[in-house]
Amino acid sequence: MKRRDLVKAGLASMAMMPGRVRQAPEWSGWRVTGDRVTGWLKELSQFGANPEGGVSRVGFSDADVAGRAWIQPLFRQAGLETAIDPAGNIIGKRAGSDPSLKPLLFGSHIDSVLHGGNYDGDVGTLGALEVALTLSEHRYRNRHPLWVTLWCDEENGLTGSRGFLGHVSVKELGAPGRDGVPLADKIRKIGGDPTAMAGYRYEQGSIAGYVELHIEQGGILDRTGVKIGVVEGIVGIKSWDVTITGFANHAGTTPMAERKNALLAASELVLAVDRIVKRHPGRQVGTVGRLQVLPGAQNVIPGEVTLSIEIRDLAMPKLEALGQEILVAGEAIMRRQGTSWVATPRTTNVAALADPAVRGTIGEAAQALGLSTRSMPSGAGHDAQDLAAIGPMGMIFVPSVGGISHAPKEFTRPEDVTNGINVLLQTILRLDQK
Amino acid sequence: MKRRDLVKAGLASMAMMPGRVRQAPEWSGWRVTGDRVTGWLKELSQFGANPEGGVSRVGFSDADVAGRAWIQPLFRQAGLETAIDPAGNIIGKRAGSDPSLKPLLFGSHIDSVLHGGNYDGDVGTLGALEVALTLSEHRYRNRHPLWVTLWCDEENGLTGSRGFLGHVSVKELGAPGRDGVPLADKIRKIGGDPTAMAGYRYEQGSIAGYVELHIEQGGILDRTGVKIGVVEGIVGIKSWDVTITGFANHAGTTPMAERKNALLAASELVLAVDRIVKRHPGRQVGTVGRLQVLPGAQNVIPGEVTLSIEIRDLAMPKLEALGQEILVAGEAIMRRQGTSWVATPRTTNVAALADPAVRGTIGEAAQALGLSTRSMPSGAGHDAQDLAAIGPMGMIFVPSVGGISHAPKEFTRPEDVTNGINVLLQTILRLDQK
Repeated sequence: MKRRDLVKAGLASMAMMPGRVRQAPEWSGWRVTGDRVTGWLKELSQFGANPEGGVSRVGFSDADVAGRAWIQPLFRQAGLETAIDPAGNIIGKRAGSDPSLKPLLFGSHIDSVLHGGNYDGDVGTLGALEVALTLSEHRYRNRHPLWVTLWCDEENGLTGSRGFLGHVSVKELGAPGRDGVPLADKIRKIGGDPTAMAGYRYEQGSIAGYVELHIEQGGILDRTGVKIGVVEGIVGIKSWDVTITGFANHAGTTPMAERKNALLAASELVLAVDRIVKRHPGRQVGTVGRLQVLPGAQNVIPGEVTLSIEIRDLAMPKLEALGQEILVAGEAIMRRQGTSWVATPRTTNVAALADPAVRGTIGEAAQALGLSTRSMPSGAGHDAQDLAAIGPMGMIFVPSVGGISHAPKEFTRPEDVTNGINVLLQTILRLDQK
Repeated sequence: MKRRDLVKAGLASMAMMPGRVRQAPEWSGWRVTGDRVTGWLKELSQFGANPEGGVSRVGFSDADVAGRAWIQPLFRQAGLETAIDPAGNIIGKRAGSDPSLKPLLFGSHIDSVLHGGNYDGDVGTLGALEVALTLSEHRYRNRHPLWVTLWCDEENGLTGSRGFLGHVSVKELGAPGRDGVPLADKIRKIGGDPTAMAGYRYEQGSIAGYVELHIEQGGILDRTGVKIGVVEGIVGIKSWDVTITGFANHAGTTPMAERKNALLAASELVLAVDRIVKRHPGRQVGTVGRLQVLPGAQNVIPGEVTLSIEIRDLAMPKLEALGQEILVAGEAIMRRQGTSWVATPRTTNVAALADPAVRGTIGEAAQALGLSTRSMPSGAGHDAQDLAAIGPMGMIFVPSVGGISHAPKEFTRPEDVTNGINVLLQTILRLDQK
């Protein structure tokens, strides 16, 4: 007896139970097959595997191409009509029964950062395929078209999802990357069609929704023991490139009172960013991650420091206010230290809020599965932030052990992966029925 | 009539003046010829000249070899019996009249740092040659043997003066430098004899004294308008290599309260070094000149920071106390930031005090020349600190415009150079007569 027949038999016997006033829909008892995903995760981890563990499967690399070649048969096995779109995304479609309904999308990515882990992106992509396969096995008759989406080159700037929205310009396609290769050539390498991208564009209102399962990449779920994170939105990011100029001089012969030490000013600024971000209530974060000292010799007073400042929050007005506070504090520091500075705005990523109805549906699905939930922002960027611009978006987080991500030690327990995929399955079913 | 005959005639007529109770010695009226040194400085500046100004005449480089070839005829012109010693130093000797007296040394170096200036070392070396030439022109009968010394490779670790003391080990001679070339080969390149260095050694008490003229390399004389710095000693140096370990994590997903940010700890430490050094009275200095952040990406919390701490003062007990205070403050910072650290002692250069009698003689010589003086420590290292171990040492400083040194803009006005050389001349004469 096949698995789906067993399930059907079980549900049939449930339906015959006396005393049940309201019949739960048949599909509410459907569950995914976690072991299958565990096997797939292991197979996928071979492409770009590093000796120290984890993978370097950077978007458009040979390892990425190999991983994409490996995964396409899985799309077909899940009953999806599969093609590569002009932007290089792999999209597998399951036709819907109601031609008036727009497609419901779910998926993630399989490219990684350099020396990344085996869960970021992979869990959501393979989870989406497992959902499609489960629906196929149950011969589910979906009302909406269901599209499983594998976005290309997520880690290096959400290239695939931006291409899906028509947000990758001809200029960006033609400009050589750090490796000297233009983006257009890279998209062609993975089977996309950059020449067709100009006319390719999904606009606001063109989809019924988008749901993405992802590892948290932080330690909150792991530490609190909560099983499912219901994402409130993806934080906005503001960042600056800062150059502080003092005066390099001999560290032995220049009296303390006569110094213009760029590193003293930079150190005060690093601490000010931290202090300002922490002194307001909320979940905003702020970081100086990059800092370089010139000339950088033991016996020379630092004449120049370059550094990055980055702040993130769900509320853009709060980000603006924090940014302003940091700039004011910086001015005072420079005056005090006798240094000058230039703070050049680098990034402004607008926050993308999850749709309240989709959030609610994810919460209900998790509750019905007996899984604890917690609302939380996503501090990291995801393709979902682009999709939020064209339809209702939601994200499901599962715990990252120790909060470690973008590193070989990134890990999510198999049972948590399975929980997440079951929540994705039940969310898609509920959204499809609404 | 030659210049020296003019001078003699002048002094002879002075001696005949009526009413002079006490006759000043003839030599007290002798002066050096500043224009000659200005010309030499310009000629020497060609060897290793950089397009942006200044020189890169690093010890043992081809430019250094060329500069040394250019200067040797000047030694002979000054009436000095000149040879290269086993360590590669150029030593020019003028025999003394009293065979019981030990030699009186004066000189400096002509090697530079990379992208250095035209005054550090050059002024003292050419000034010493001008003193010898002036003595020769006056047919001075010196009591002590007078030795003009050009120490090799001062900037890269006082190699020549350490070699003179027998402090360069066989191990150091054989070990390849950063360029892969062993020191022994370099010393051979400039005409030294590394195989003879083992038996070459000037010991405590073997010289009557050493006097070095040098630019200040700081801005105190220039700012205060004082003409001559009488060096109290060369500061001691203590330094540490520090590694701070936190935990690198995603700057978007890691809440502020859960971070172990190595750069926050490093910033507190940089400010603590500055605060501790400044809160005590005195002229000690302290600097963090080198600081590197890992992994050093905008969106990653710094997991590791390496940095240097260096403190300098004339009083070694004060240096010990300051170092202890910094280490205690560092411990508290690491506890507060949840980071750990290792501070490895790197250098301990013991302070070298100038001889009080030599200092007094320099002061008298300057006063007799009508030049204002100021006692001051040397914050930079000099060959004089090695020579202090074998005999009475003194140093004469002249103003550095803007305190700039080790840079193309390093500059000392010609009249200040001449003042310094006249002080050197009169100091050597006074010491010789004592």
